[in-house]
Amino acid sequence: GVNPDLASERQTASFSVEKLTALLDGGVEHTRIRRAVVEAIESDPVFSRENQYFQSQNERYEAAVRKAVHLQRKMHELGWTENGPEYKYIYRALAGDVAFLLHRIFMRSISMLGSDRQVAKWIPLANQYQLIGSYAQTELGHGTYLQGLETTAVFDISTQEFILNTPKISAMKWWPGDMGRSATHTVVFAQLYVHGKCYGVHPFILQIRSLQDHSLCPGITAGDIGPKMNFEHIDNGFLMLQNVRVPRENMLSKFCEVQPDGTYVRWGSQKINYFTMTTVRISLISNEAIEPVMKACTIAIRYSVVRRQSKLKPGDQEAKILDYQTQQEKLLPQLAAAYAFHFINDYLEELFERAYRDIQRKNFDTLPELHAFSSGFKAMVSQYCTSAVEICLRACGGHGYSMLSGLPSLYTRILASCIYEGENTILLLQTARFLMKCLKAASAGQAVPPSVTYLAAGKPGKCPAKNKLDFLNPDLYTEAYQHMAARLISSTAAKLQDLVQSGVKKHDAWNQCTVQLAQAAKAHCHYITVKNFAETVEKLEAPAGIQKIMKHLCDLFALHGIFSSAGLFLHDGYISGAQMDMVTASYLDLLPVIRKDAVPLVDAFDFSDKSLNSALGSYDGQVYQRLYEWAQKSPTNQMSPAYERYLKPLLHNKLSKL
Amino acid sequence: GVNPDLASERQTASFSVEKLTALLDGGVEHTRIRRAVVEAIESDPVFSRENQYFQSQNERYEAAVRKAVHLQRKMHELGWTENGPEYKYIYRALAGDVAFLLHRIFMRSISMLGSDRQVAKWIPLANQYQLIGSYAQTELGHGTYLQGLETTAVFDISTQEFILNTPKISAMKWWPGDMGRSATHTVVFAQLYVHGKCYGVHPFILQIRSLQDHSLCPGITAGDIGPKMNFEHIDNGFLMLQNVRVPRENMLSKFCEVQPDGTYVRWGSQKINYFTMTTVRISLISNEAIEPVMKACTIAIRYSVVRRQSKLKPGDQEAKILDYQTQQEKLLPQLAAAYAFHFINDYLEELFERAYRDIQRKNFDTLPELHAFSSGFKAMVSQYCTSAVEICLRACGGHGYSMLSGLPSLYTRILASCIYEGENTILLLQTARFLMKCLKAASAGQAVPPSVTYLAAGKPGKCPAKNKLDFLNPDLYTEAYQHMAARLISSTAAKLQDLVQSGVKKHDAWNQCTVQLAQAAKAHCHYITVKNFAETVEKLEAPAGIQKIMKHLCDLFALHGIFSSAGLFLHDGYISGAQMDMVTASYLDLLPVIRKDAVPLVDAFDFSDKSLNSALGSYDGQVYQRLYEWAQKSPTNQMSPAYERYLKPLLHNKLSKL
Repeated sequence: GVNPDLASERQTASFSVEKLTALLDGGVEHTRIRRAVVEAIESDPVFSRENQYFQSQNERYEAAVRKAVHLQRKMHELGWTENGPEYKYIYRALAGDVAFLLHRIFMRSISMLGSDRQVAKWIPLANQYQLIGSYAQTELGHGTYLQGLETTAVFDISTQEFILNTPKISAMKWWPGDMGRSATHTVVFAQLYVHGKCYGVHPFILQIRSLQDHSLCPGITAGDIGPKMNFEHIDNGFLMLQNVRVPRENMLSKFCEVQPDGTYVRWGSQKINYFTMTTVRISLISNEAIEPVMKACTIAIRYSVVRRQSKLKPGDQEAKILDYQTQQEKLLPQLAAAYAFHFINDYLEELFERAYRDIQRKNFDTLPELHAFSSGFKAMVSQYCTSAVEICLRACGGHGYSMLSGLPSLYTRILASCIYEGENTILLLQTARFLMKCLKAASAGQAVPPSVTYLAAGKPGKCPAKNKLDFLNPDLYTEAYQHMAARLISSTAAKLQDLVQSGVKKHDAWNQCTVQLAQAAKAHCHYITVKNFAETVEKLEAPAGIQKIMKHLCDLFALHGIFSSAGLFLHDGYISGAQMDMVTASYLDLLPVIRKDAVPLVDAFDFSDKSLNSALGSYDGQVYQRLYEWAQKSPTNQMSPAYERYLKPLLHNKLSKL
Repeated sequence: GVNPDLASERQTASFSVEKLTALLDGGVEHTRIRRAVVEAIESDPVFSRENQYFQSQNERYEAAVRKAVHLQRKMHELGWTENGPEYKYIYRALAGDVAFLLHRIFMRSISMLGSDRQVAKWIPLANQYQLIGSYAQTELGHGTYLQGLETTAVFDISTQEFILNTPKISAMKWWPGDMGRSATHTVVFAQLYVHGKCYGVHPFILQIRSLQDHSLCPGITAGDIGPKMNFEHIDNGFLMLQNVRVPRENMLSKFCEVQPDGTYVRWGSQKINYFTMTTVRISLISNEAIEPVMKACTIAIRYSVVRRQSKLKPGDQEAKILDYQTQQEKLLPQLAAAYAFHFINDYLEELFERAYRDIQRKNFDTLPELHAFSSGFKAMVSQYCTSAVEICLRACGGHGYSMLSGLPSLYTRILASCIYEGENTILLLQTARFLMKCLKAASAGQAVPPSVTYLAAGKPGKCPAKNKLDFLNPDLYTEAYQHMAARLISSTAAKLQDLVQSGVKKHDAWNQCTVQLAQAAKAHCHYITVKNFAETVEKLEAPAGIQKIMKHLCDLFALHGIFSSAGLFLHDGYISGAQMDMVTASYLDLLPVIRKDAVPLVDAFDFSDKSLNSALGSYDGQVYQRLYEWAQKSPTNQMSPAYERYLKPLLHNKLSKL
């Protein structure tokens, strides 16, 4: 049965959970399909994650490969295809522990960067798993700065081959997933040399293991990079190349080519090589940042109405911890952020799809904005969500620290999203560079993308709020965010200009402004997120109950940001100290209002117990029983040799000299 | 050899590293002893942590027990005793992976709470390991709020015994270290009942496993609680009691007693029962919060002068990442915090030693202040340091995420310090309650402890700074912190009073202020830390070079706090927007100054390579070679059965239906 402390929370929902779920899914039909996928996956014992928290890295890897292979069979059986409506729900249902994700990136980069001929040759092979692909970009000494890659590909005109080499240890490929133990092929990024001239980084298809017996190919050294903070199921690998030859046809050549005589021809921007990363960044926001936060909120909020601790009022029974203001203030802003980011993700996906269509038609105009968006939002959302998951973990006290809560693995996994596919600070600075350019253009009266037109309109002004209720007006707080972002961007631009005018070299000046540039980029993304949330709520086609609670969440998200970064709004007096007290009051007032619907709001995310895999977060709230049951299954409850070997001699005083 | 990029950093140190090390140790003699202990431990292969990152929870536990047992032998051999000068360095040298730490807490609680007779009986047994002790306070359903514990101890006058019971699942003891698999005895906390009357929580000595064969004693159910985010080496346990009887003499009775006829007698404050926790809180600040931050800074800063990425200036070679302002702004404030907390820890230890002497003389006057200090600083320092370690980890990019960097385990371990020995928010609220009382007393002209006299002097005022250099004046910024803390404390007190006067019930009013109360408590601790750092630097007896760099670090710590929490200082106009720009300028100006000495400043912490156990942080800076060497030792580079079982059939297209 359901724990009564949790059941009672559901009886008072102010809206239909089922309708909110459908809204999040994008319609009831999507919800139906998603649930069918989840049901098919979870009813299959091969996909069970029951023992995950007890497994070693080797066991996790083996399980992930087993699941990946089984998934192929299953998809075939059920008629699911890569283009079918079920596809996007499969990985959510598997909840991550599956191999060959890099095989998909391998395919995506060939589809995007390969010539028609290359696509025709490699994609069917990959589709049928006649090879296992990977994506080898990062090196031991080189990450986000791709121009710095040291692997070389020298064109040998006599044999019409590229000769690939790892000239030194820092050039070793390091981190690529699926490469340490599984992959037979990889797309490897290397500096292209023709006739001694360097043409920069290009992608090459390379076989690394035998298709017959999986032994390493000649000239290849490869293996697994060892334990990580999470992703034990993935064989992140290393790769060294010694005079490895690939035919001329293996350089991906949709946008450029080395012709048989060594002539280098290019049809598109060199930047297109990074487009795979751009698309990966956008897609990871949803899977690797937003979904974990939704799960963490589900676990922490359900637990917080079951956990009772201390008393609100002398003589009462102990209170649910979610009734404490401090607990509400930890969790509910994270819940609001989960919704905010869900809606900004919709916005980004739409933006990306439009750009992708353009690029297919070789129109690269939207690339700079898309790159700035994907960089800034990847950085801002992953950072925000990582901190949100950590807050959820800590809000569950000691039990949150148990692996059985599910929160530690959510945290250690989401943390990686701040690092991979571009380190966040560097990404924010790329967005900042775009913003600086746009500001300059806007100031000169030139056209800029719609998302940054606000930069032209920068003016001092004051927030017009007269009482705390004014801060529940979305126009008012969106305006405050806009003002704040515009101020940070223009004041940093001014500092940059001052430095240059005072004789500081341009690159030094840039470096001296980077702390503030990163802050400005984050502020821009925060502003766009608030604005998009407010606009989404405004035009929401949903029952009044849902509209109302979404409005509350939007208010909370916005006011939490002002409360937490008060200095940014107070700095030029746009918001006064007295107004900040109103913000604080409105912000704190919202907490008990949203708290009433906290459980229905996480129920609407519709995660199954198996997908949460949490002793604290299950739908029935039987937290203590489940912790106790799961703990008993732990291998640490087998007899340990430590007793006979060490404890017994110690206690029986039979240690020599003791 | 040492990597030249790291070696060059040491040649330009502005001070003597060796002298700074001695200063941190409290004198050259301490440095000598510490190094001797480290040498003795590290030269002994039993204490090796070489394979730690590759071990399972079971292997970690066995290794920890082996080390703990071996340590006894070793100490005996070398003549090290619990009271000797070597003792406090042993655990630093072992770097944590050792069992029986709860055995020490067991002994400490008996020494502190036991009668002379109990001390005489149990301490020698424990000292000679004729038993292994633990400390069973926390329950599955009850943590920081001790009054809520549900385990019962009913006095049976007929047999002169206490009957101990776990009345329901939430009352099960859960988390105690060393208890899941090792301990034979424990100090168990239970609600004392005599003649049907409850006298609150009391500690009892209880045997849980046979001294003969280690089987569980009658009525005892116990085991290990399974995997956690870290502390794999510790057997955190669960314990259920069914009518377990202990003799009357087993209730710890230095301050209270149940007499044979059932009369309950008390000599001291009931609060003294929590004194063990207070002492543990103080001691963990140094070992579990400050030391990990020092290690994390050492690793991240050394790595940041070896790692080169991107270019500062076109045409240059790639730059050391520590030359980027953003990297400096991540790491150097954490380095400054490590020093700030080192000095506040000295202050707290002195305070504690004074209080401890008082309590031994049954003078409990300083308990409230000591409790407030230990709670607030435990919370503030552990939270600050946890976030500092996370920043260090993320600042190392992908390699920081590898377990081989050492940073993930530092992080997952320090994170626990925010939770155990009192959840941080609850602790901050205890400090806040103390501050509210002191404010009231101070306003009424009554005497208050010296640390809070500033509350009486609260006045509006403005920061007198006229240019950015003024913010390098310790009096000026200490004053700003004092003003800010006093403002938060008094404005929260005013809100509390307003609510009560407007008819809100006292406990509801308290709850509605807790977010701000916690903030005020944190601000108080932050202020004391800045003040103490400034005073320490002021009276430092050290060469000019050390004085100068310590002054820089103190300035950086203080200005970083103002920059990061600008809103708190801007709110009432104490610091104006224009002055905040000066703060920012001074703050950013300090970064390149301290950056020059960053490596010497972490070298001074004097951690051996073995104690860092980090491929990124070794003294010689051979980062990439070490990562590669260590990765090759990983068990994930053994042949996996996954190929024969899954990959081969897949690639050879022998999966049915594929």
